[in-house]
Amino acid sequence: MPLRSDWTGERCPIARSLEVLGDPWVMLVLRQAFSGVRRFEQFRDQLGVAENVLSKRLSTMVDAGLLRRVPYQDQRRTRHEYVLTETGADTFPIITALAQWGERHRPHADPGIRMDIVHRSCGHESTTADFCSHCGQHLTVEATSWRKSWRDPQDLKLTGAAA
Amino acid sequence: MPLRSDWTGERCPIARSLEVLGDPWVMLVLRQAFSGVRRFEQFRDQLGVAENVLSKRLSTMVDAGLLRRVPYQDQRRTRHEYVLTETGADTFPIITALAQWGERHRPHADPGIRMDIVHRSCGHESTTADFCSHCGQHLTVEATSWRKSWRDPQDLKLTGAAA
Repeated sequence: MPLRSDWTGERCPIARSLEVLGDPWVMLVLRQAFSGVRRFEQFRDQLGVAENVLSKRLSTMVDAGLLRRVPYQDQRRTRHEYVLTETGADTFPIITALAQWGERHRPHADPGIRMDIVHRSCGHESTTADFCSHCGQHLTVEATSWRKSWRDPQDLKLTGAAA
Repeated sequence: MPLRSDWTGERCPIARSLEVLGDPWVMLVLRQAFSGVRRFEQFRDQLGVAENVLSKRLSTMVDAGLLRRVPYQDQRRTRHEYVLTETGADTFPIITALAQWGERHRPHADPGIRMDIVHRSCGHESTTADFCSHCGQHLTVEATSWRKSWRDPQDLKLTGAAA
């Protein structure tokens, strides 16, 4: 555990959240899960994270109810992938707010590089996390894309909780 | 630094945010700053954090533009306190979303202990972070209280960026 204290019994819900979400690798695994990643090797390669670090985080996240392990058939054997639960997908406003704060206050050195939150239902970018700043509708995972200036195509449809 | 990687140059703004906000002590210092804490001893005592850990975080947060050092006169000498900048206060939706997620998904073992986000302008609790879920108005720091069931009085008015 990267945390220096046990905050699970804290009266403050911010501290209780941070007990699991205060680990940056957990947040980046969530980001990849929203991006549609489900398999260990994809998380590892896309995050550039050591296998033991990743294993530990995935298992913490399953225990905390953020991810669910789902079996799939490899050519040779049964393996598992990791999908978002409703609890995991409900971190979406936190992730979105982090993205928006980062673009506002820690822009990339190259001004051509940015990621915007796009509310596909209205087609506009949103600068707020719970409700679209353009149309006011609830900004669900399913109706949101991440528009990455460096990507082709730029818009990535997000993935929420698995059925 | 608690982070295992340098994410300042990442294209993704979530990673750039996590470079500073991915440290749970930083988030808890922000929580105390929103609660009106300004002085080193208060942060230390209320967070139960070691002085060297706290010093390091405060200096990181000043460097990152989240806090500003302001001199004040002690009986004997000039000392400094720490106030939120606009950049620091702009983490409010992230902090609020963490509190709401924590209450929903990691409730305290004692169901009588909870903290709600109260939008004072309309007088109702909000379950969303950017805009009040009851009246739809923007949920500013200045119009928000934290209602702590264990506190007397229960409602704590929050403090935003210092003028």
